[in-house]
Amino acid sequence: MALIVQKFGGTSVGTTDRIRNVAERIKRVRDDGNQVVAVVSAMAGTTDRLIAMANEFGAPPPDRELDVLLATGEQQSIALLAMALNAIGVPAASVTGRQAGIRTTGSHTRGRILDIDPAHMRAMLGAGRSLVVAGFQGVAPDGVIHTLGRGGSDLTAIAVAAALKADVCQILTDVDGVYSCDPRVVPNARKLPEICYDEMLEMASSGSKVMQSRSVEFAKKYGVVFEVRSSLNDNPGTIVLEEHPTMENVVIRGVSIERSQARVTITGIPDEPGMSGLILGTLAAAEINLDMIVSNIAHDGQARHSFTMHSNDLGRAQAALKPVLAELGEDARVETEAGIAKLSAVGIGMRTHSGVAATMFKALGEAGINIGMISTSEIKIAVTVDETRIEDAARAVHNAFKLDQLPN
Amino acid sequence: MALIVQKFGGTSVGTTDRIRNVAERIKRVRDDGNQVVAVVSAMAGTTDRLIAMANEFGAPPPDRELDVLLATGEQQSIALLAMALNAIGVPAASVTGRQAGIRTTGSHTRGRILDIDPAHMRAMLGAGRSLVVAGFQGVAPDGVIHTLGRGGSDLTAIAVAAALKADVCQILTDVDGVYSCDPRVVPNARKLPEICYDEMLEMASSGSKVMQSRSVEFAKKYGVVFEVRSSLNDNPGTIVLEEHPTMENVVIRGVSIERSQARVTITGIPDEPGMSGLILGTLAAAEINLDMIVSNIAHDGQARHSFTMHSNDLGRAQAALKPVLAELGEDARVETEAGIAKLSAVGIGMRTHSGVAATMFKALGEAGINIGMISTSEIKIAVTVDETRIEDAARAVHNAFKLDQLPN
Repeated sequence: MALIVQKFGGTSVGTTDRIRNVAERIKRVRDDGNQVVAVVSAMAGTTDRLIAMANEFGAPPPDRELDVLLATGEQQSIALLAMALNAIGVPAASVTGRQAGIRTTGSHTRGRILDIDPAHMRAMLGAGRSLVVAGFQGVAPDGVIHTLGRGGSDLTAIAVAAALKADVCQILTDVDGVYSCDPRVVPNARKLPEICYDEMLEMASSGSKVMQSRSVEFAKKYGVVFEVRSSLNDNPGTIVLEEHPTMENVVIRGVSIERSQARVTITGIPDEPGMSGLILGTLAAAEINLDMIVSNIAHDGQARHSFTMHSNDLGRAQAALKPVLAELGEDARVETEAGIAKLSAVGIGMRTHSGVAATMFKALGEAGINIGMISTSEIKIAVTVDETRIEDAARAVHNAFKLDQLPN
Repeated sequence: MALIVQKFGGTSVGTTDRIRNVAERIKRVRDDGNQVVAVVSAMAGTTDRLIAMANEFGAPPPDRELDVLLATGEQQSIALLAMALNAIGVPAASVTGRQAGIRTTGSHTRGRILDIDPAHMRAMLGAGRSLVVAGFQGVAPDGVIHTLGRGGSDLTAIAVAAALKADVCQILTDVDGVYSCDPRVVPNARKLPEICYDEMLEMASSGSKVMQSRSVEFAKKYGVVFEVRSSLNDNPGTIVLEEHPTMENVVIRGVSIERSQARVTITGIPDEPGMSGLILGTLAAAEINLDMIVSNIAHDGQARHSFTMHSNDLGRAQAALKPVLAELGEDARVETEAGIAKLSAVGIGMRTHSGVAATMFKALGEAGINIGMISTSEIKIAVTVDETRIEDAARAVHNAFKLDQLPN
């Protein structure tokens, strides 16, 4: 008898009809002789509706109260799914974040899971019940409710799987798994049977929004093998796991793209200590998430820094940098460019294969696509291109590495 | 500095605009130098909406899960009211039933308050915050959520007032207080400045639905003085308290009426031990709430029992009694009468004043109203009349006891 953790997102439990479907799915898994712990999000739309109410009082709601409010969304869906399960003969009980023993730390609306005391869940499982655990929430040591922020239910599922030493952890979602590239862009993209944590992390941070990075990081830290698969069918999905030697045979696992990026370049920076810290500190204080960061020294001895960010943040970045320019001296200038996109090729195989960048740049060149910034890590090569060419770029790179074909 | 507990019902917090009004009201009390603990119900309509969802799975929802679901209603309203308070500069924090230390016993959906550990609330009050406590909910010793059933938020308010030794407990509602009779029926009915627990209990059990009996019983048990007053204005309401000697000067405090009653009479019952138990046990097993119960021996040596109940229960009562009739013997018959109503005159003064029943029956007789069943307690005289005459009956009795005039 295997213990299987299954996570269902807000769309999967968005209506009572869909909740019934989820219940039927859990029943099939149970009828095959398994124990099931479902982790669910709030019904789609609930969280937005609650946030809208919270914003009707003319002042930003205190985060503490926002957490109390938002946690009700998952509490409703666990009760409803437990009802749906009992109605079809599956003994099931709902478990709030607190009852699941999920202790959190950090700040309200962005809590982090500290640990999970699985005693209560174990006792209930021992009594033969399936469990329905509220995602996205936990309780701080002083008893206040924390929510876990975006992607929090995935995190709950992986943490619960770790705490219960589950045999399988499935993240059921509206995609079939992780693809070699977005199939809407590259029609011959292939579903990957497996991908290692580090590749998944690079894909996630490069715009492949199957899961938030921190859930993958948590899984990596605790060695939780999980599968991303569709909630709409029974097809096998993508297994995410620690890398093993044969995985390095594949040079590039996948290509991910991220649109709506913007570039800020600051030129004429005196080549003195502290300049980079000043600039990056200013942008961090303005809560602007930078993605690629490239800097070098120009022939005149002055430095230049370039960053990419979401284009929504460009205005705020320019405003934040204005007072800094004066401190940088009279030669300093800010240039901006919106309308760019990022393409990343990701694979642990590039650690042991040479010529990956050359193959990639050659393919882009042959497709007539100009490369802007370049940034690399041990297992990723990322470039910016004009946003109008990003789909052509993705297809060119996907073809160059033959990602539509099964690896040898 | 007084500590004031204020309870607001679902209508008072039914929209974000109304929640803002409640916040303003609490702010005024606080600005007068008081500490405030608000106890709130779910926003009007929320509970019904949740119950409707719970009933969509084709089987009665388990009570355990219904409690998990319904408790979210109050959790939402406490968060929203705490937000509204903070938005107008009142430091306030929401407190769930669990955080309030409300420990319950009994069964799901009908939990009873076992005790309250006020340590956490005291600490928060000590930090200068106003509190917004979720009504209607608590936690059983094993950690599961209990809701308290109908009128549960009133019960929470009174229990919280007792636990915190509050100076004042106000039940804010959509009526101005407790009246000598329903003003829609008796236009010259008077708002009572005070009423003792026992009178309030008799009024409540006699159809004056300002509050559920058990909240009043709890207040009586723990000596919590509370005031029923309007949430829409600042008029003084009705103080409910332990009786004091001068209260006995008033013969009748008020007249309450209850419509849509039905009578069941069983005749031809053998005058043997166990017959009453058989009949009443059968009706109790069918979960039919009996109100008046009258029985006597007819001249032929056979007994007859009459009961009143809500007319909605009449069909179920007849069905439940059918198999019992055979056991009662061949002479047993069931008669039923719907379309009756009950009038009760209530007052602790009748313990020390004679002739109360005579005055009441004379008034009804002069108004040409036939009396059906009669039932009395130490402080109540109740009669049934034809439902079409109940308003005339109420006015006649109200006038006979001069309830429109201030007592001497």
